Amino acid sequence: MTSEFEIIREVFSPLSDSADGAFGLTDDVALIEKGPYVFTKDAIVAGVHFLAKDPYDLIARKLIRANLSDLAAKGAKPAGYFLACVWPAGIARDQIELFARGLKEDQERYRIALYGGDTTAHRTKTGPAMFCATFFGAPPRQGPTRRNGAQIGDDLYVTGTIGDAGLGLKALLREEKFTTVDKASLATRYHLPEPRLSIGAAIAGFATAAIDVSDGLIADAGHLARASGLRANIDAVSIPRSSAAGAWVARQSNRWKALSAIASFGDDYEILFSAPPSMRRSVAVAAKAAKTDVSRIGTLTRGEGAFLIDEQGREIETKTSGFDHLKR
Amino acid sequence: MTSEFEIIREVFSPLSDSADGAFGLTDDVALIEKGPYVFTKDAIVAGVHFLAKDPYDLIARKLIRANLSDLAAKGAKPAGYFLACVWPAGIARDQIELFARGLKEDQERYRIALYGGDTTAHRTKTGPAMFCATFFGAPPRQGPTRRNGAQIGDDLYVTGTIGDAGLGLKALLREEKFTTVDKASLATRYHLPEPRLSIGAAIAGFATAAIDVSDGLIADAGHLARASGLRANIDAVSIPRSSAAGAWVARQSNRWKALSAIASFGDDYEILFSAPPSMRRSVAVAAKAAKTDVSRIGTLTRGEGAFLIDEQGREIETKTSGFDHLKR
Repeated sequence: MTSEFEIIREVFSPLSDSADGAFGLTDDVALIEKGPYVFTKDAIVAGVHFLAKDPYDLIARKLIRANLSDLAAKGAKPAGYFLACVWPAGIARDQIELFARGLKEDQERYRIALYGGDTTAHRTKTGPAMFCATFFGAPPRQGPTRRNGAQIGDDLYVTGTIGDAGLGLKALLREEKFTTVDKASLATRYHLPEPRLSIGAAIAGFATAAIDVSDGLIADAGHLARASGLRANIDAVSIPRSSAAGAWVARQSNRWKALSAIASFGDDYEILFSAPPSMRRSVAVAAKAAKTDVSRIGTLTRGEGAFLIDEQGREIETKTSGFDHLKR
Repeated sequence: MTSEFEIIREVFSPLSDSADGAFGLTDDVALIEKGPYVFTKDAIVAGVHFLAKDPYDLIARKLIRANLSDLAAKGAKPAGYFLACVWPAGIARDQIELFARGLKEDQERYRIALYGGDTTAHRTKTGPAMFCATFFGAPPRQGPTRRNGAQIGDDLYVTGTIGDAGLGLKALLREEKFTTVDKASLATRYHLPEPRLSIGAAIAGFATAAIDVSDGLIADAGHLARASGLRANIDAVSIPRSSAAGAWVARQSNRWKALSAIASFGDDYEILFSAPPSMRRSVAVAAKAAKTDVSRIGTLTRGEGAFLIDEQGREIETKTSGFDHLKR
């Protein structure tokens, strides 16, 4: 078994090569000279946020991407991160190396570097692996796009497609059946979300509010609406779906229930944002420039909460208010 | 069971009241405007870094103090922190509130604020509680005191007393017997370390290198020496001991073994630093100004590693190279 200090020196320290002020992970602290920065923090736990059997490189990359998604929603440009790892007792060095390879791959993709962290382990082999990251990035000139700036009458938009990661998880757990092609694409959405950095930066000038969709579309629309003191009305049929998710919805006996499920799964890592109707053209231009699909899915009105609306304008009953980590 | 979002709003958000840019924990990110800052990150896990039966307010305060100790060694002034909590499934709200009360108490003592974080839980009641913090503070004007600046011939100093926390843990686990008074004082050193912020700032101008002693005196002296490309020679009898630790050493049949044990326990959260002999007067002045005991315990020479030396100048055999989280 390799020691903690060898692991830091040999496996993690190379990940800090391009991090000015990280001191090669050889000191107690990292020095971050310039500012301002926005910071976000996430913890993920085996059996809760990822499957215990997921390969460690994919876990590492999902951790990076989930955090970058928070920065993306705020229009920020990722810079670096701090990472704490808690391994099961007796973890093999090659598993830690696999994890580090995943980090390296996405560090290069997103041009970020490791600035510091902590490596420790449980006393038991069954202790669940946990990873905790603090990411930071440069906010856009106007400051980070906040959650609380939506105005009455604003349009509500979402990037990409919704529900794929949740269906991917069901496919991996064999709770739902899919074609081989659909299963592969849905599982990829679960394992490797795409942080929407380009569109997040492109809308920062005119979006009135934004949030990344990680708890589920309805839940996160509720967070945005509550922070803004408004009510979010989501037109259920306009929720963007991949062909795999569309096929799944079509197979369900109750279409509204299926749409409500898709809007509740979580793990989408898309950006939900609001903008005044006068900005529809700017939204289209930003979407094109960022090469990212953006769908207009509803409006913000006086009131409170977030609701799915059917074609007749009636509220669709939704079972869940989104993923709640303390209630699971 | 209270929801994740209620807990953040009602229990954690008040802890961010004085944190400019934390947005009351209602957004995806916190904005940190000014710089430079030094950052440090720590993860602590039930059964490894604290006892599962420890009260949550003490766990919270130890988490804060262990991180502030890193900042103290670098001469930095604490500013704020990010916190991720992973609770056992079904954690009672009053336990989370107890944890938050501990945070509040030490936030006020050290004038820091909560800037953001994450709250989640295991799927099982036996999932070990885990907390992960990223602390930041303003470095001294000269920049953070590094680990790697020690020079040949420098003196080696340590603050406070060594070995108390380790003996406190043994007392709590009933592995060693103590008088009631000694047990109480040693247990307090285990539960509530004193980050040496004043002395850390006072020596920043002339200390050539510094590190906080968390892995054990010998191990951390080794880290400082290795980073500086030198060898640390620690005069075993000069290691400062509290009266309780002194009494314990006196009771052991092999004095050198006892001193070596004390220098290997870890969890001391004292500052180990180096300074040239010409600075002895400055060290004394800084110690007095900071109202902190400082002991000269050795020297740095050409070579590698860290060694305990007896009164005849011979190396004392030491069993451990300090606490290794991956090897336990």
